[in-house]
Amino acid sequence: MSDRRYLANAIRALSMDAVQQAKSGHPGAPMGMADIAEVLWRDHLKHNPNNPNWADRDRFVLSNGHGSMLIYSLLHLTGYELSIDDLKQFRQLDSKTPGHPEYGYTPGVETTTGPLGQGLANAVGMALAEKTLAAQFNRESHDIIDHHTYAFLGDGCLMEGISHEACSLAGTLGLGKLIAFYDDNGISIDGEVEGWFTDDTAKRFESYNWQVIAGVDGHDSAAVQKAIEQAQANEQQPTLIICKTVIGFGSPNKQGKESCHGAPLGDDEIKVTREQLGWQHGPFEIPADVYQQWSAKDRGDAIEASWNKRWVAYEHEYPKLAAELKRRLNGELPGNFDQLATEFAKQLQQNPDNPATRKASLNTLNKFGPELGELLGGSADLAGSNLTLWDGAQGITADDASGNYVYYGVREFAMSAIINGVTLHGGFKAYGATFLMFMEYARNAVRMSALMKQPSIFVYTHDSIGLGEDGPTHQPVEQIANLRMTPNLNCWRPCDAVETAVAWTEALKSKTTPNALVFSRQGMSQQQRSDQQLTDIAKGGYVLRDSDDTPELILIATGSEVDIAVQAAEKLTEQGNSVRVVSMPSTDVFEQQSADYKEQVLPAAVTKRVAVEAAIEDFWYKYVGLNGAVVGMNSFGESAPAGDLFKHFNITVEATVEKANALLG
Amino acid sequence: MSDRRYLANAIRALSMDAVQQAKSGHPGAPMGMADIAEVLWRDHLKHNPNNPNWADRDRFVLSNGHGSMLIYSLLHLTGYELSIDDLKQFRQLDSKTPGHPEYGYTPGVETTTGPLGQGLANAVGMALAEKTLAAQFNRESHDIIDHHTYAFLGDGCLMEGISHEACSLAGTLGLGKLIAFYDDNGISIDGEVEGWFTDDTAKRFESYNWQVIAGVDGHDSAAVQKAIEQAQANEQQPTLIICKTVIGFGSPNKQGKESCHGAPLGDDEIKVTREQLGWQHGPFEIPADVYQQWSAKDRGDAIEASWNKRWVAYEHEYPKLAAELKRRLNGELPGNFDQLATEFAKQLQQNPDNPATRKASLNTLNKFGPELGELLGGSADLAGSNLTLWDGAQGITADDASGNYVYYGVREFAMSAIINGVTLHGGFKAYGATFLMFMEYARNAVRMSALMKQPSIFVYTHDSIGLGEDGPTHQPVEQIANLRMTPNLNCWRPCDAVETAVAWTEALKSKTTPNALVFSRQGMSQQQRSDQQLTDIAKGGYVLRDSDDTPELILIATGSEVDIAVQAAEKLTEQGNSVRVVSMPSTDVFEQQSADYKEQVLPAAVTKRVAVEAAIEDFWYKYVGLNGAVVGMNSFGESAPAGDLFKHFNITVEATVEKANALLG
Repeated sequence: MSDRRYLANAIRALSMDAVQQAKSGHPGAPMGMADIAEVLWRDHLKHNPNNPNWADRDRFVLSNGHGSMLIYSLLHLTGYELSIDDLKQFRQLDSKTPGHPEYGYTPGVETTTGPLGQGLANAVGMALAEKTLAAQFNRESHDIIDHHTYAFLGDGCLMEGISHEACSLAGTLGLGKLIAFYDDNGISIDGEVEGWFTDDTAKRFESYNWQVIAGVDGHDSAAVQKAIEQAQANEQQPTLIICKTVIGFGSPNKQGKESCHGAPLGDDEIKVTREQLGWQHGPFEIPADVYQQWSAKDRGDAIEASWNKRWVAYEHEYPKLAAELKRRLNGELPGNFDQLATEFAKQLQQNPDNPATRKASLNTLNKFGPELGELLGGSADLAGSNLTLWDGAQGITADDASGNYVYYGVREFAMSAIINGVTLHGGFKAYGATFLMFMEYARNAVRMSALMKQPSIFVYTHDSIGLGEDGPTHQPVEQIANLRMTPNLNCWRPCDAVETAVAWTEALKSKTTPNALVFSRQGMSQQQRSDQQLTDIAKGGYVLRDSDDTPELILIATGSEVDIAVQAAEKLTEQGNSVRVVSMPSTDVFEQQSADYKEQVLPAAVTKRVAVEAAIEDFWYKYVGLNGAVVGMNSFGESAPAGDLFKHFNITVEATVEKANALLG
Repeated sequence: MSDRRYLANAIRALSMDAVQQAKSGHPGAPMGMADIAEVLWRDHLKHNPNNPNWADRDRFVLSNGHGSMLIYSLLHLTGYELSIDDLKQFRQLDSKTPGHPEYGYTPGVETTTGPLGQGLANAVGMALAEKTLAAQFNRESHDIIDHHTYAFLGDGCLMEGISHEACSLAGTLGLGKLIAFYDDNGISIDGEVEGWFTDDTAKRFESYNWQVIAGVDGHDSAAVQKAIEQAQANEQQPTLIICKTVIGFGSPNKQGKESCHGAPLGDDEIKVTREQLGWQHGPFEIPADVYQQWSAKDRGDAIEASWNKRWVAYEHEYPKLAAELKRRLNGELPGNFDQLATEFAKQLQQNPDNPATRKASLNTLNKFGPELGELLGGSADLAGSNLTLWDGAQGITADDASGNYVYYGVREFAMSAIINGVTLHGGFKAYGATFLMFMEYARNAVRMSALMKQPSIFVYTHDSIGLGEDGPTHQPVEQIANLRMTPNLNCWRPCDAVETAVAWTEALKSKTTPNALVFSRQGMSQQQRSDQQLTDIAKGGYVLRDSDDTPELILIATGSEVDIAVQAAEKLTEQGNSVRVVSMPSTDVFEQQSADYKEQVLPAAVTKRVAVEAAIEDFWYKYVGLNGAVVGMNSFGESAPAGDLFKHFNITVEATVEKANALLG
């Protein structure tokens, strides 16, 4: 047995032992890809286990995340802070080794994977970030940003539609430092894939302008070595290395079969597998010489030290650039940003205007953009509708990646997962836009940003029936509620230009929470505000109009319906009622405020409440209760001019007044 | 000018006139594809404007649905009940000509399109339905089911990931009667696609095992004619005809540019376009000879009459088969189904068992399946986990499509849109399964079934943190609320084998509403029920346990938490409280009951309410109000054994009792 195989077998042993101990998990992929991983990680991967966050490290993504024991084994063996006891805690509560790789739980895990295809799209985002950052900051003889992104993926990733979107775009953008390894083992959960997956994958990726290295024996280290070198040599195209492997390699009775994919091998099979592999060590036992040969700590320290030297030279020659790069890599906004944003909001408040909030969003980008080199914008082929292409936006192309705007094409899901990858990579504030309805095409990537605590920014325009004639396929109803109910996601639906600027400000300042910015197609009346009210917008909900004495009734509204609520309040006040209007641009952010503040805005004693929003009513019972009322939607929209639709669906001042009067009795 | 061009220009004129009149819409695609449409519709499409629902008609899908004026023009010109006045009402409220083609609004519109890529996937579903129905019912010399499915599509459809999923599967299944026309005009909303869409589409589709006819001049009728004939001649492979076209063909100043894609041409440009096209008729004016040459009414009557003759012969030779086919095409269940279902539920109630509801679902399929030839099942590569592969399930392959089960591969979005296509086609009760979390990958197709009022059945297993070790990427939190908030969708989360059987029964009986059946991974305790309670399950919510006198407090629960609520009620009763337990397998269906019934179950006077569900809490305030409490989730899950997670997240009998006691004071 070669030394390489022996070292790879350490992965196999750890993987089957940990899955067995957990009584659940996926041994097949780690055992099948162990030989590939050994070559990549021991001979090529540029990383430092002593500093998992070193900026110029290669990124490694396990897109087939169910094979998590592969990456845990690699991190353990190469010297990350992941002990053998951590591996024994595989899939247990509070462990560093959850069932799927979870970003933030384990040093060295670059992204959360498991939802198939998304890791690959994250990797495209990381490679895009590297290429763009390099184009923006590298200078002659100073390749300060220069690393590869490697992704492992399986049949599942390639069947998923997102693989098409992401890889097509990666080809167009010529992401030459992206190298993907396809674990072509012919098996998926339902069995041999030939019954449902018959693509000529090499041909498919060639059609995307990738370099394809097909027919590599994934158990022949020399062949893998050669393929990696060929991949690295091509700097113009991303590379797909198609590795023929045997799932569960080494298991005499289960290898090559679905039975080793997602279940423990069982004690008996593990015993004979040890024999077949010639691995004569007990469960979780790794001999010292194996550890020694796997350790990447010294090599990692050395390459990081070498980079640090280059950094000093770079900093010396380009002090401003270096400071800017450092700031961006640290995720810090420019020092003057807070002031800029505060003044901008004040200025907007003082100069009333009634643009659509999508237009107000563009105005905000035009104001903030020149100060924010880290902006990396884009739209899924709706730039002119989403209004994301601000004055300083410059498209990124294969030949010139120094821009700050991505023409994503009609690829909502890939766009969103790529944004997550860019954000995980660091150095950027990435935003991407589509119609709110088509958030649904990308929905799970939005959730993943929240799960990973990444401050991705999702811009969604055409937020309701207010979009008009395009009709119910394009008119959101339940989508805003879906965003609000997603844990750790802040959804904003501002009512005017001022709230729009604040929403953008909060999104840009966010460090651990993605933000969804929901904008209107149609114009919006600007509301009056005191300085205090202006400040309170950032709290997600605040009293916009109040009664002189204790309110009898509270109207709660967001976005285009705030003006309806304000007008209704005026009519109710004329009738002699004491009515408060609460503008609630972000229920998520409002919920994060103190109990005192929330009670001030929505006093428990005031139980007569009407929520007004051109969206599904169900959500609002959280704020109006069983005795309250909602002016909203309970059906899909229709195709007609927007004005006709608000009347048709009874989302009007009159309907609000009527429901309020019914409560006031 | 050829006669053909003249006839095609009728489409161009109607499209630009209607968009102009509506002051919004998309003239570019109809004007670009008019010549292709003329050849297909006048020379090939087998349909009858006098009977848009004739069973053996060809299906036509406009996947680039924004070009709706193309199909409206075609339907009007060929003689469907769609008048010139209807065209003048384009994009107006209550018209038959909404902004995008909407199923059910316009005779001859086979599916709702607009959300890109999904029409193509619907078409794959229709072609699959045709192939399977033909394999099941045709007999030697009796090709009673024999029609094509034609789809038009644009760049957007091809960039979307779902096009990969659907077309890859269509190639594997050898859907030879599917013929797609790619409107290769080089333009998308952001401009010339070469900046973001550089696929070699011909190569890509060859990699899927499609026949590709590339380089067809979409304005050369003879070339289009030849391509269609070649496509029809190949019965083993689906065909993609790549048509080079000029968007907005005929507009001197806007053709070939993005400016004609999604906005009216303007009166001046329309004038010069009329001149360039040689179309000397006023707005909405179609000369009688043009109508005459376009009319498909006589031809349609003749081909339907010919089919009717063949039907009589078929019915004569195969009376049983014919009756079965008729029943299925009419969407009627077997006459004995109600009795079978009622007896099965009764039998389950009398023989308590505690399976996971996914297993109870399999048991139900095994019971109902043998009686339901119309079942067309499947799973997105999770058959063994979703438990959808019942005893009588037989895979469909390219060579033998007579089965009743589709191995969809890891393609959730395509699966769901294909199910919609199968359901729209008729003849089947189609269901497809994945983990509940991955509903999100398919989310917009689920919504589309609800919008189209199609009774698609979506099976979702692994419904909560109860799935355990796979962790937060796989543990639904906000997904059930998302399904419940979707208009016209019935979401069921049964608590035991009995409720599972009822949920399946209701889903199968549904005619205009899709159903999402949400099942557990883990075992569930069976609840006791009276005959009345058994009947009431179908009402979506019912009193499962009651107090002897008026309840002081109501516990509302679903799925795996019903047993927690029942146990909590027992403890609270022991404490001397009067507590009711409401099992609420479907809030959607419960909402459809009479106000009286709802008041009986949840009396307004009882305001002390606790909802218990291992899912996002927000939703439940609709039922417990501001004074109630929820035992649920407010964060993502974790990776650990299920039992540990219920404790960790405090979804327990103890937590329920505690919250109840806090309300009881």
